[in-house]
Amino acid sequence: MKIDNINLSSYPGSTKKYVKGKIFPINVAMREIHQHPTITIDNGKRIEYPNESVIVYDTSGPYTDPNVKIDINKGLPRIRESWVIERNDTEVQNDISSNYGKARRDDKSLDAIRFPIFHKPRKAKEGRRVTQLYYAKKGIITPEMEYVAIRENLDNEARGIKTYITPEFVRQEIAEGRAIISANINHPEAEPMIIGRAFAVKLNTNIGNSALSSGIEEEVAKAVWSCYWGGDTIMDLSTGNNIHETREWIIRNSPVPVGTVPIYQALEKVNGKVKELSWEIYRDTLIEQCEQGVDYFTIHAGVLKEHANLVSERLTGCVSRGGSIMTQWCVEHDKESFLYEHFEEICEILNKYDVAVSLGDGMRPGSTHDANDRAQFLELEVLGKLTEIAWKHDVQVIIEGPGHVPMHKIKENMEKQLEACHGAPFYTLGPLTTDIAPGYDHITSAIGAAMISWYGTAMICYVTPKEHLSLPNLNDVREGVIAYKIAAHAADLAKGLPGATIRDDALSKARYEFRWKDQFNLSLDPARAKQYYMESRRDAPDSDDRFCTMCGPNFCAMRISQNIADSCDK
Amino acid sequence: MKIDNINLSSYPGSTKKYVKGKIFPINVAMREIHQHPTITIDNGKRIEYPNESVIVYDTSGPYTDPNVKIDINKGLPRIRESWVIERNDTEVQNDISSNYGKARRDDKSLDAIRFPIFHKPRKAKEGRRVTQLYYAKKGIITPEMEYVAIRENLDNEARGIKTYITPEFVRQEIAEGRAIISANINHPEAEPMIIGRAFAVKLNTNIGNSALSSGIEEEVAKAVWSCYWGGDTIMDLSTGNNIHETREWIIRNSPVPVGTVPIYQALEKVNGKVKELSWEIYRDTLIEQCEQGVDYFTIHAGVLKEHANLVSERLTGCVSRGGSIMTQWCVEHDKESFLYEHFEEICEILNKYDVAVSLGDGMRPGSTHDANDRAQFLELEVLGKLTEIAWKHDVQVIIEGPGHVPMHKIKENMEKQLEACHGAPFYTLGPLTTDIAPGYDHITSAIGAAMISWYGTAMICYVTPKEHLSLPNLNDVREGVIAYKIAAHAADLAKGLPGATIRDDALSKARYEFRWKDQFNLSLDPARAKQYYMESRRDAPDSDDRFCTMCGPNFCAMRISQNIADSCDK
Repeated sequence: MKIDNINLSSYPGSTKKYVKGKIFPINVAMREIHQHPTITIDNGKRIEYPNESVIVYDTSGPYTDPNVKIDINKGLPRIRESWVIERNDTEVQNDISSNYGKARRDDKSLDAIRFPIFHKPRKAKEGRRVTQLYYAKKGIITPEMEYVAIRENLDNEARGIKTYITPEFVRQEIAEGRAIISANINHPEAEPMIIGRAFAVKLNTNIGNSALSSGIEEEVAKAVWSCYWGGDTIMDLSTGNNIHETREWIIRNSPVPVGTVPIYQALEKVNGKVKELSWEIYRDTLIEQCEQGVDYFTIHAGVLKEHANLVSERLTGCVSRGGSIMTQWCVEHDKESFLYEHFEEICEILNKYDVAVSLGDGMRPGSTHDANDRAQFLELEVLGKLTEIAWKHDVQVIIEGPGHVPMHKIKENMEKQLEACHGAPFYTLGPLTTDIAPGYDHITSAIGAAMISWYGTAMICYVTPKEHLSLPNLNDVREGVIAYKIAAHAADLAKGLPGATIRDDALSKARYEFRWKDQFNLSLDPARAKQYYMESRRDAPDSDDRFCTMCGPNFCAMRISQNIADSCDK
Repeated sequence: MKIDNINLSSYPGSTKKYVKGKIFPINVAMREIHQHPTITIDNGKRIEYPNESVIVYDTSGPYTDPNVKIDINKGLPRIRESWVIERNDTEVQNDISSNYGKARRDDKSLDAIRFPIFHKPRKAKEGRRVTQLYYAKKGIITPEMEYVAIRENLDNEARGIKTYITPEFVRQEIAEGRAIISANINHPEAEPMIIGRAFAVKLNTNIGNSALSSGIEEEVAKAVWSCYWGGDTIMDLSTGNNIHETREWIIRNSPVPVGTVPIYQALEKVNGKVKELSWEIYRDTLIEQCEQGVDYFTIHAGVLKEHANLVSERLTGCVSRGGSIMTQWCVEHDKESFLYEHFEEICEILNKYDVAVSLGDGMRPGSTHDANDRAQFLELEVLGKLTEIAWKHDVQVIIEGPGHVPMHKIKENMEKQLEACHGAPFYTLGPLTTDIAPGYDHITSAIGAAMISWYGTAMICYVTPKEHLSLPNLNDVREGVIAYKIAAHAADLAKGLPGATIRDDALSKARYEFRWKDQFNLSLDPARAKQYYMESRRDAPDSDDRFCTMCGPNFCAMRISQNIADSCDK
């Protein structure tokens, strides 16, 4: 199998910029948006005032660097490999460890769809823990920590904007459990990023096939596409065929952390028969995925047998796939969840690869009716206890949250999470603020996501227009990512994140000065903005007219306003 | 000129429902969405449990009533005409009063585009005031007041939901200035609706041509289309050709109140030359539009000469068209605004027709940078004083608000407005919570609109995806209205409006029970929801499968969850 290269155009008007580390020999990727000068005519003389370029956070990895040759069949450059090696606390395994992985490898019929290159997995040396949390607690600043500190600051320092985000601050936040750097030692292709409420709000996109649709090429394309538009992490939620091989292609070509829900694959291994799930199958799946390089696992270990009966009290029961699977398992076996029972063992696997745990909210509300109910908050208490266990094993933790929550109940979610989970980062799906708009749930949920991020959520999981209706396609991914970039950035502004207003102010200034191209280039989706403008300006596609068709030439407030300002100045 | 009829299909699965008044012989239009039964199989026996129909607010007027024959060239039935006549405080004018209106009427070249039927205008008898505020203060309950009380309650009473919204409560809210019924005596085609924070949040859509595009047919189509999707009022912001004739077609065919910004037309009358504007031209424009049936006027009477210099302090100056025009006029004449100087006279015109005043925020921020600044809040104080003047003349008032405001500054807007304007309803444009997403400003602003509505804003003005870029087309109107229906409804849920959760709960139940058609029909945009579902289910278009392609058959949490609930029940 050979996948055609995915050629993304660079962002318009932009160049890749790399900022060097001061502690480590690292190059932190950013995007620089260049602007045209402001032009004024004074006494018939044309004067140009330069406009500073704007540096923005860049999740697209090497795909938008014209100096990097992309080959999907080889995977991305392994930028973190040397950092991991130099720590000298891991070793390359002679073979992969999971039985399932071995079986897939030995199955010649899969050669046709297999990723062409095999990298031997790496693992912590006997008795070692190799997580960013472990290092942070020991007082060690890693290259990953310096990387994210530089990445978060963009060009704040150069602009004289005071920032609190230093490598040491990053280390402290991680040591205290308030932030994580999700970076499996077996996914050295990813650029480090940080999830924590002292930093820019991040967004995750869900991709992955289902039994009914979508192949490997399409899923890799979705992953890269998500990064292009601004997705900070990707969750591969594949539940169909060839999950193992699909994931390999995605990870090797992903410049951002990749998360999964291992119970999905475990269930596929027992042909969808929940009752046949077991700790052994699940454990083998964890190891299989740890060695492939998955950066974080959603684990629904807070779904307990005693909570199963709460499902029937609800309007929409249990809408978490993992949660419903585990509930069914508990009921069918009349036993406590094996995820809960074996949680310490899980942690001892994860800290050998630095896979973070995302504690799944199996009881998240699936309707505004069920928001903030007993099932949801009882589980949250359990997640808090599991957080402490994970931290004891130096495993990094984030906590998943709802779901469907009306606006007046959103703040309570954030407050209860911070208290119950001791400040671990919150990672929410939306929440959707009303249930009545299928087809537009990127909007119903962007409202909730913006609000809960302002209140302190560190990462938001996007919702596409297809939510509740069907599997998203490429265009849905774009719509979903942009809606969530809006929510995340609106929250950064409201939180007063240092430097957050720079892009808004630059775009507003460009708008006011009718620098249309700069306005487009500074926007979250330059192609869309330009397209809409052009639709009604086909007659003058390259015009720098001081109006648009919305108001026409006589009624442009900004043009009139500039004239007033000019005449006031005189 | 003859415009083709606009044939809107009725809403799927729905019928028109009319509820009779108890005080007056009125028929209040609503929409009833019918549901399929819930089907369970118990011991091989099929049992059907009926699901109650859901009554929702309906802004589409007669267009979705199959029993009404629509003829765009004749206009809608004049349902309020007899109510106005029976009050016996108005009289039909022998001729129209405005000079401009007469000139247009006598211009034979306009016959080709003129609305075919001329209704003689009606006006208060000498010395009378005919506003809903006047009646409310006198303790009089009007048919309009009973109409909106019934309309707001939907079927709450029948469901045993306690409600505070009675005709007497409506009267009190209007008498106190906390709500308005915008209903010009010359627009009897419109179904009464109420704007006030004790009621469901309303949304306005802006339509209208500009000098660069759009004709009469297209604008009428946009108006009707807006009502179909849920727009509660329409503002005709036309600034191009034939404003007078375009407006006539819109008003005669609009089942919702129509607002305008008269200064736009006044400016067209002086060929766009701001300096040539005068009180006389403006006054004639007011009368012209009062007699056509415009229900509310945006008047930027709070823009004062002394505030002109504040424009140059801002990043994006003055972005209100009316505000910038008036500021320029003040600067060019070095005189106080004629709108401010003649405000009492304006009120004495408006109370003869019951046209409400929407006090324009000429200094609304055009960027998050300028939010909550001196220019904005100084103007708000002036609007508060003008509110008192309008109330003295028994003119109904709403107050326009921003604009571009980051989330953490939204609440302050609401609080300051309530205080400065003595509780008059707030009517905001968004606000947009970030400036960096042109092409998606229906989303950046739906976030702000939902929040400010929850805090107390009574009506929100929609923003379409084309905002800042070009004039919206029919599809943009749909996208904008749905985004704002979402914001308004999310706020109704958060405010705890009686009965607001009924539709959400019904849709969630339908979703949980895989009643796909009911889920679509209960949604804000049934066609879109169905389209998305069908895209991936072409193989089984009429299926009632208990899953969708998002998760596939084995991974549907809701299906699993139902099985659990079933087994827990046993």
